Amino acid sequence: MKKILLVGASGTLGSAVAQHLRQQHQVITASRSDPLHSVDLGSDDSVSALLQAVGPLDAIVATTGSVHFGPLTEMSPAQFAQGLQDKLLGQVRLALLGQQHLRDGGSITLTTGILTEQPIAQGVSASSVNAAIEGFVRAAALELPRGLRINAVSPSVLSEALDAYGDFFPGFEPVSAARAALAYQRSIDGIANGQVFKVW
Amino acid sequence: MKKILLVGASGTLGSAVAQHLRQQHQVITASRSDPLHSVDLGSDDSVSALLQAVGPLDAIVATTGSVHFGPLTEMSPAQFAQGLQDKLLGQVRLALLGQQHLRDGGSITLTTGILTEQPIAQGVSASSVNAAIEGFVRAAALELPRGLRINAVSPSVLSEALDAYGDFFPGFEPVSAARAALAYQRSIDGIANGQVFKVW
Repeated sequence: MKKILLVGASGTLGSAVAQHLRQQHQVITASRSDPLHSVDLGSDDSVSALLQAVGPLDAIVATTGSVHFGPLTEMSPAQFAQGLQDKLLGQVRLALLGQQHLRDGGSITLTTGILTEQPIAQGVSASSVNAAIEGFVRAAALELPRGLRINAVSPSVLSEALDAYGDFFPGFEPVSAARAALAYQRSIDGIANGQVFKVW
Repeated sequence: MKKILLVGASGTLGSAVAQHLRQQHQVITASRSDPLHSVDLGSDDSVSALLQAVGPLDAIVATTGSVHFGPLTEMSPAQFAQGLQDKLLGQVRLALLGQQHLRDGGSITLTTGILTEQPIAQGVSASSVNAAIEGFVRAAALELPRGLRINAVSPSVLSEALDAYGDFFPGFEPVSAARAALAYQRSIDGIANGQVFKVW
């Protein structure tokens, strides 16, 4: 049984990942609104306090982060920057600060998405942020010491999110959050390092 | 003859690109320290003022941007964020604000690098930022109106930079800035859209 910190557990994807991982592991859930483990991934202090409180850990998972969706021709630099601060830097902050709280052989699993490779209208910020997360994972995997590993999971649009986001993904085959959750287990319990697990 | 704005012309790469493009085009050079066209890519106002002063344009080129190099195990979120603000958001700001100042059929060419795909020690920030630029280019290419195009050029380490950076790139085959400059011409004068021209 591993001790896993899951940030973003209140979301559709995160709750499915928590449910799946709990079958075999101890899962500590955290999110902005969590009553027990509240965390703001925008703040070093907040992330450090969480890690101090719950570590040492065998795995850290992030299933969180938002980006601005909107037409390229109207997108402001400030709107583009939202995703850099939230989805990208938030997850990278958790990884950078979290590496010191992982036991030897531990793992970090971040969340990217299909838009890295398959853009949609109004999704330029998501394509850029997701690509950045994957670039981070590829490079960080080669530098991590002590048998630590890092991977990313790239889901397609979730079945559970079709009502809200389906119009942005015409003809995309949705995947269930439960199916995406498998890839997180694969990252945590397997030996992969520097991989992007595509759930599509 | 096209009217081209080149931001970052004071650098090793930028000066070679300016020299090459001037054989056939009008090249307006700009940089942080340019006496005639000074620009701060960190500021919307500064970029807008430059574009207002020199537009309309047939092509916009960025050969600028810095990132933090350092070991992953010691990298702070603030150090990682430097490249997001400088190389990534700086170039994206120029593209987002610049698209309105391009004539029909015009092009944008950004600069990424070999570390997207081939990481080096201490280069995790560069790998992430370069990947983000390539993700932006792939997605933006599909949304740009009026026959506008966008591409990126990805050089390996430059021969001219070997004294300064060579130790970071053991065994990498360097390329001359003059060779890399060809790819910018290919982006500007060709028909490619959403491509990453690898000069390695």
